[in-house]
Amino acid sequence: MHPDLDFIYTRRSIRKFKPDAVPSELLEELLRAAMAAPSASNSQPWEFIIITRQQTIASLRRALPFGHYDATAAIAVLGSPLKARNPAGLLYWEQDCSAAVQNILLAANALGLGAVWIGCHPVKPEVWGVRRALKIPRTSTPLAVIMLGYPAEEKPARTRYDPLKVHWEAYGGGASTPAER
Amino acid sequence: MHPDLDFIYTRRSIRKFKPDAVPSELLEELLRAAMAAPSASNSQPWEFIIITRQQTIASLRRALPFGHYDATAAIAVLGSPLKARNPAGLLYWEQDCSAAVQNILLAANALGLGAVWIGCHPVKPEVWGVRRALKIPRTSTPLAVIMLGYPAEEKPARTRYDPLKVHWEAYGGGASTPAER
Repeated sequence: MHPDLDFIYTRRSIRKFKPDAVPSELLEELLRAAMAAPSASNSQPWEFIIITRQQTIASLRRALPFGHYDATAAIAVLGSPLKARNPAGLLYWEQDCSAAVQNILLAANALGLGAVWIGCHPVKPEVWGVRRALKIPRTSTPLAVIMLGYPAEEKPARTRYDPLKVHWEAYGGGASTPAER
Repeated sequence: MHPDLDFIYTRRSIRKFKPDAVPSELLEELLRAAMAAPSASNSQPWEFIIITRQQTIASLRRALPFGHYDATAAIAVLGSPLKARNPAGLLYWEQDCSAAVQNILLAANALGLGAVWIGCHPVKPEVWGVRRALKIPRTSTPLAVIMLGYPAEEKPARTRYDPLKVHWEAYGGGASTPAER
């Protein structure tokens, strides 16, 4: 693990949070990072909802069977291809929004927060539940909810690198560099 | 833009490359970063092909109308839900692979490389072309090809932050913090 990539390896899914509230300014920083993600043809097919009201976070917990964490804040990432700058958003919104999610997770980690990505789309009941909790119109789709807060657990840096997932030059081309073979 | 998030803001899509080859070790570093991305239920529904052969890169250029760049290396990111550790990969492979792509782009930038994300799935002709160029079986889908090399252009750090894309507490809940209203 290259030391210059610590910002990637130290990001871990954090599911235990301190009760301290996250300042609004810090949550906005996360969205500045989110919207620095690339998007297909610069379509920016995304919108974001920042949630700090504990009652709304409780509704999200009820909507998300895999999101039952005592987060003090949350960010919903929505695909909004009809509000995108061009039609590429219709094809690529899911990928573009996922890049934005990853930026939020990395930014949260770099700013001393903990975060976990809770999947939503394409699972219908989760989409419906989050839609209702956050009053999201049918023109937008909640891709994911990021549960956030100050971390109450520590995890070591790591990667899931698996050489069996790596091919050189073509599929099935071998898991080592050509020079090594 | 918070200075601790420079690793995000300095990443820009680089489309002009120097002729110098990228060492294999550096390309492997990028995959170590890719596989540090989170995945749904830790399914790891991904595979990667590293391409350095110029003939193969030329085939990719022909397959990708939006990828006609003189890159010296490329990484294809494949969704391989049947090789995932659990069925969550079937639902979320596109999102998980997109997070891996974003990690590769950020890692490339941090290691002094330039990179650009070329979309592939869900556009059929691009998928077919990349599949043929890299001998990818039908059990895997090329999500994207990242064109890579040492950068021959410089771009300033930036974000596309747009306050109109931000809602507080619920959709339509306003673009400013509750305290500001």
